[in-house]
This record gives sequence, structure tokens and C-alpha cells, in this order.
Amino acid sequence: MSELQDHPVPDGEEGDEFALPQKLFDEILDAIETADAPRIDAILEPLHAADIADLLEQLDFRDRRSLLGLWTGMDGEVLSELDDNLREEVINELPADQLAEAVRELESDDVVDLVEDLESAQQDAVLRALDAPGRIAVEKALAYPEYSAGRLMQVEIVRMPEDWNVGQAIDFMRGEENLPDQFYHVVLVDVRLKPRGYVTLGRVLSHPREMPLKDLAEESFRTFHVEDKQGDVAYAFNQYHLISAPVVDDEERLVGVITIDDAMEVLDEEAEEDILRLAGVGIESEISDSTWGTVKQRLPWLAVNLLTAIIASVVISLFDETIAAVVALAILMPIVASMGGNAGTQSLTVAVRAIATRDLTGSNVWRVLRREMIVGLFNGVVFAAVMAAVGIVWFGSPALGGVIAAAMVINLVVAGLAGMGIPVLLDKLGVDPALASGTFVTTVTDVVGFFAFLGLAAMVLL
Amino acid sequence: MSELQDHPVPDGEEGDEFALPQKLFDEILDAIETADAPRIDAILEPLHAADIADLLEQLDFRDRRSLLGLWTGMDGEVLSELDDNLREEVINELPADQLAEAVRELESDDVVDLVEDLESAQQDAVLRALDAPGRIAVEKALAYPEYSAGRLMQVEIVRMPEDWNVGQAIDFMRGEENLPDQFYHVVLVDVRLKPRGYVTLGRVLSHPREMPLKDLAEESFRTFHVEDKQGDVAYAFNQYHLISAPVVDDEERLVGVITIDDAMEVLDEEAEEDILRLAGVGIESEISDSTWGTVKQRLPWLAVNLLTAIIASVVISLFDETIAAVVALAILMPIVASMGGNAGTQSLTVAVRAIATRDLTGSNVWRVLRREMIVGLFNGVVFAAVMAAVGIVWFGSPALGGVIAAAMVINLVVAGLAGMGIPVLLDKLGVDPALASGTFVTTVTDVVGFFAFLGLAAMVLL
Repeated sequence: MSELQDHPVPDGEEGDEFALPQKLFDEILDAIETADAPRIDAILEPLHAADIADLLEQLDFRDRRSLLGLWTGMDGEVLSELDDNLREEVINELPADQLAEAVRELESDDVVDLVEDLESAQQDAVLRALDAPGRIAVEKALAYPEYSAGRLMQVEIVRMPEDWNVGQAIDFMRGEENLPDQFYHVVLVDVRLKPRGYVTLGRVLSHPREMPLKDLAEESFRTFHVEDKQGDVAYAFNQYHLISAPVVDDEERLVGVITIDDAMEVLDEEAEEDILRLAGVGIESEISDSTWGTVKQRLPWLAVNLLTAIIASVVISLFDETIAAVVALAILMPIVASMGGNAGTQSLTVAVRAIATRDLTGSNVWRVLRREMIVGLFNGVVFAAVMAAVGIVWFGSPALGGVIAAAMVINLVVAGLAGMGIPVLLDKLGVDPALASGTFVTTVTDVVGFFAFLGLAAMVLL
Repeated sequence: MSELQDHPVPDGEEGDEFALPQKLFDEILDAIETADAPRIDAILEPLHAADIADLLEQLDFRDRRSLLGLWTGMDGEVLSELDDNLREEVINELPADQLAEAVRELESDDVVDLVEDLESAQQDAVLRALDAPGRIAVEKALAYPEYSAGRLMQVEIVRMPEDWNVGQAIDFMRGEENLPDQFYHVVLVDVRLKPRGYVTLGRVLSHPREMPLKDLAEESFRTFHVEDKQGDVAYAFNQYHLISAPVVDDEERLVGVITIDDAMEVLDEEAEEDILRLAGVGIESEISDSTWGTVKQRLPWLAVNLLTAIIASVVISLFDETIAAVVALAILMPIVASMGGNAGTQSLTVAVRAIATRDLTGSNVWRVLRREMIVGLFNGVVFAAVMAAVGIVWFGSPALGGVIAAAMVINLVVAGLAGMGIPVLLDKLGVDPALASGTFVTTVTDVVGFFAFLGLAAMVLL
């Protein structure tokens, strides 16, 4: 039996007991430098595959390469845990026989997860390494659309006729050689393999042998279709606190099972992607990306931003004579734009999340829009008062104070409306609101901010 | 047995099968208007508690109040699923006896989750509604620090002596009246109640009665301490694909169990909070917040932003004479600041997430900083070339083009360094990097952007 292990990794000197300790890195770097293969094996052997993957990700390219040359313990689980960019690098460096051995020990859904993002040459190499039944299972899964329930499910299922009792279930499981590593329910099916309910193992275990399974079935159960989107599946797991759920094909026959750990991973990925998209970073960004990989993730978004910044500058250029007459306008105008941009980002972030969690729908969108407008008005008035005071104290001009105050109110109301309205509109049009809203919203608040402030100034001050 | 239900909720007219259908809202609003209590019961009865909570959140205040007056089915699960702000509202409106009945049916960890954010008067009302053992369990959990494993765990545990075999385990579970609703492992303990390993139910079920449980224990298992932070627990569940894990006290005695569904909820909340913090929105923001609640979540952050915007304006004011001489500077300067702000936000978002997932540590921080600098340099040169061209074409001034190009390179390099360095520094200082980085980084990129652009212009163009 395993020893009691109080902490996932040995304590480092510093505070975070859940991060890999610095000492581990020092030791592994030392072992790499002295090309001490047995010591590397000894250091990595007790670590969880996920920690080994993290360690590989945190080494630099050269050290990682040396380590992979020395270490013989690479297995399928470590490959599964690696960031996509590194996985390709590692698979390229791994001898074919070692790759084959590593992949063969994985379950079919893990192999699918492993190969789906690989280039086709690498994908072929991995598939060739599998035995025929394994290869067929993986190829079948890859035939489902990307990000579908079919790709996420495992095909290893524990299913039973719906008229069995507890004793039959236990006898069946004791006799079965090929049970999945982890399972939490048995699925009851009818003669046409249509799922009819499921029973948790806890209930099977805590009832007498004569008890019919159907009497132990969960009150409600949900099935997914193979082509349901993974994001929707993860949402349903989180919303309804599911532990596992059957997946059916077009004929409503049971073809697989999705478990909560897979759903948890998808949920985590989706939130991560929302964060990265909102910040204008490619969703595949990883801290382990190469310099060139990082450039590729970021440059396109900066290019879009440049375009919108130029649009804002064109608006400013319409008022070049006004600015030449009153330079204070150039000094104050970024404040109006910045406040609008920030207020807009606040609204759009709340909107994007509420859309993702199905909390912003046709039934409350108008009420929420009205609320955003009132909030913008209120905040606008507060900061208008502050800026009016700043304008008067700093530049001694009540007129300038009045202009910036008015522009502030206008821009914060517009920010609220645009921040909430644009994501909703994009969602209706089938565009991911996290992806594009930020650019649109800040363009709106920049343009409106500069136009309102400089336009009013041109009317009032000149 | 339950019927097959292909979709979590009945299909609406539109695309999203996982959102509550509009028809449901139309029906419920109609029933509220006609004060048709039986129809409300009939509509809500088949819905999952989480869906009823969503529906309540999406109604406006008056409709919700009418519905709560008419509907008699409110139970503990619906209360558990409600947003915090609404939960307080609903608990205030609920008659004491109905509240008592609703709470009594919940497990202790759900009651803890329900009451921990309530005001103390409401908390007392809920606690009074519990029977003595339930109240003691909840009060004990509330004695642990907020956001600790002790608050998250359930105290209902299935534990056995480490020397039992499969048959003894099954007989014990069949005889036990008070098993938890959901459990996935049995925990093996020694005579001092110290956890020694755990066995999945699937393994118990698939082995003969004589098999010692010890031989079926998972290879590695992790325990948490009652005072471990929930975020760390969720991280470990996700990192190591845990399904459930024992929680121990200072004497290493087993006191509870945390299951993956609780960890999934925490993980979801943590990601949500990061998103909201990065956007400068209070972490308790909900789409169902009242207008005043929304103002309170957003105004403080806008006030901080106003301060930083004023700092940037002070920098601009240092160059008022330069701007008066060359108005084109006022037109172009927001571009430099905006590009810097965006590049900084990209870096800081990647940094904040990498810190949260323990992927950015002492072992790779210098390498990542160097990468950010090179990426900033590369992107800076690309956009410098574009802006030089714009400067020349738009304003016919190669000197102006040169100035904006140089400022762009400087600001994007600084953005990369500040975007990655500031979150790391804040984390070292024990400040949540998601909370404060954004303000610092954009202040840096604004100040550097304006200073570099206008300062160079003052030197070159005047």
C-alpha cells in the first residue's frame, strides 16, 4: 500500500507547497549537466506525470533536449500532460519504439486527446504504434467533429440489461477482465442498447443482492449526443453536478461515457480560453511557448488594435485646429477615452461570462441593458464632478471643466451600452463574443470619447 | 425508473439547447400575472434546482417576488444554487418554517456553503432551523478559515480498518444506514484514524470477497489539511486528476472528504474571479446584481483608473509647448499608448494565468522575461515600420515617422517586461496579481508611451 503523503510535492523552502520546489530544479539541472542518467531517473521516478510535464515545460530548450536524451522513463501519461507545443517537440525527438510503448498503455480517449492536435505525420506515427483494436477505436473517435462529445468520451463502458439485480451486477463485474480504470456508475440499457438509467456504485454496494438495479437508478439522468459540443457538456456537468453521463449516437444507442474529470478539464480550458481571448492573446498561448510561437499568438491582435487606434486618431485629427487653440484638450482627452475603455471592458467582461454561463438571455437582456445605462449614468456623473473640479483647478477654466464633465457622462453611458450590447449582438450572429468584443467596444469608447470631448470643446471653447 | 431525457431542458425555438427556453419564461410570466399558483408549481416541478435558480435570477425583482409568494416548492437545493445576492433576498422573504424545512434536507457541506456568506442575522435563522447534530457539524465547519479545505469537505465519510477485505467492506456498506449520497472511494484508516490509502468502489466491486482491501488501494493518494486553501485543493484535483481526497486535522486524523464536484466548483469560481479581477470588476459581480450593487462593484476600480489616467495626463502636460507647436503629436500619441497598453495586457494575462497554474516559477521567470523582451522588440519593430509609414504618408514628415517608430519599439519592450514582471513581483509580495497588475501595467505603458513619444518629439522636431 502507498505511504501517506501529506503534500503533493515535497515542501520547498518557500511558501507555495503546491508548486514544484526550486530544489528539484537545481537537482535536475545538476544531473543534466553531469549527464547522470540514473540520478535523473531517481529524481523523476516518484513524481506524478503532471509534475514531470510541468518540469519539462519549465526547462529551457537545450536542457529539455539533454534530459530527454538521458531519461528513459517517458511514458504516455507524461505525453498526455504536456502542453501542445512541447508535445510536438518531444514526439519528434522520441525514438519510434519508445513512442509506441508510451502510447500503447493509454486508454482510447487519452490517445485521442494526445493525437488530435498533432500534425498528420506525427498522428500517423502514433496511430501506427497502436494495436489494431486500439487504432480503430481512436480513428473512430477522430471521425467525430473536433470539440465534440464523441472525442471526449471513453468507449470503455460498464453496461447491463435493465432487468438485472445487484447480485448479477456484482457477479458480472467480478468476472469481467476489461473494466475501465475508473468508473462511477453502471449504465442500464434496453435490448436495443438504448440507455435507460444509471446506478451509482455506492448504491450497488450498499444494497442486498436481490435488489433490482432499476429500483436503485438515479432519479434523473442526462445523456449527450456524440456531436454535442464539449463546452456544452462541461456546462451541463457543472450546472447539474453530474459525475458521469452516457453518450448516444443518432439511433440513441449507448456508445460511450463522459466522466466528470474530463468535463472538469474542458471547463478549465474554456475559462482559460475566455481569459486569453478577452486579453487579445491566441488561445493556445502557453508560458512554455517559444519566442516565435509567442509572436505568432500576439502580433495579429496587436495589428487589429493598431487599426482601431488609427481610427481613433482620425477622429482626433478632425479637431486639430481646436487642439492647436487649446492644448489643455490634448492633455485631458486620454482621460475621457481611458475611463470609457475601462467601463466598457467591465461591462463586456460581465456580459461575456454571463453569456458563457447562460445567465444572459432574451428574457433579461433588455433589463440588463437598462441597468448598464443607469450605472454608466451614475458613474459618469460621479467622475464628471471630479473631472470638472480637476479642469477648474488645473486649468482655471469652468468651461473646460464643463466640457470634460459632459463628455465623461456621455462616454460612460455609451460604454455601458456597448459593453453589454456588442457581446450580445455578436453572440446572436454566431461569433464568439470573447473573441471580438474587446476590439469593438474600445473602438466605440475611443471614438465616442474623443468625439464628444473635442466636439463639445470646439462648440463651447472656440 | 426515470425516463430517457435527451436534453437537459426542452428544446427552445432557437439554437442553444442548453439555455432555458424563452417559452418557459413566457409561460411563467403569464402564470405570475394570472396568479395561477398550481400552474407555477406544474411548470417548475420537473426542472432541476439549478435551472429554477437560473430562472429566478433572470426574472426582475417584482416578478420574482410575486413568484415566491405563489410558489410553495422552494427547497434547500434551489437556495444552494442561487447567486449570493439573490439568496439573501429570497431568505428574507421566506417564512421561517419554510426556510427550516428547506435547509434540513441538505448535507452539512451544502449548508455551510449556503450560510457562509449570509449576514449574521440570516445565518442564525438558518442555523436555528437545523437539528442539534446538524447545527454542530455546520458550526464546526464555520470555525475553519474561509476558503479552507475544512469548509469545503463533507464530514460524511466511508472509512474502514486497513486490514479488512472486500467481503467485510460490502457487508459493512449493506448494513450501514447513513451512507453519503455520493461517494467514490472507501478510505482505509489505521487504529489512530490516520488515512492509509483509498480504494475505488469499482475495484471493490470487481474483486472476490477474500481480497484484502490493501491490495486494491490506489498507487498514490493525496490528503489535504483542513486549513489548506480551496484554490490549492482545486488546483491539485485538476493537476492530479483526483476524484476524491481525504482531509486530515493537525494530528493527521481523517476528518472529512473532498470530492471532485466540489473541487470543480472551486476551480470554476477561481477562473471566474481571475477574469473579473483582470477586467477591474468586483469578484462578486453577477448579471443578476441590482443597479446599486453593480455601481458598488465597478466604481472603486474606475476611481483607481481615473487616478492613473490623471498621472498619464500630467506626463502629457510636461510637453504642452511641443504639442502646441506640432498638433500631429496629439493626434498620434494615443496610438503609442494604446499599443503599449494592449501588449502589456497580453503579457500580464499570460503571466497571471501561469502564476495561477504554477507554470511560472523561479526556475523559468528569467527566461520568460527575456522572451517577453524579444517579443516586444520584434512586434515593436514591425509596428514601428507601419507607423513610420503612416507618419510619413499622413503628415509628410519622416522625422515624425522616426519619432513614433522609436517610441513604439520602446513602449512594446517595456510593455512585455512590465506585463510579465509586475504580476511576478506582486505575487512575491503576496498580493493577488490578477487584482492589481492591470492598473500598474497600463500606468507604466501610458507613462512610458507618452514620455517616449513626446520627449523624443521635443528633441527631434523642435
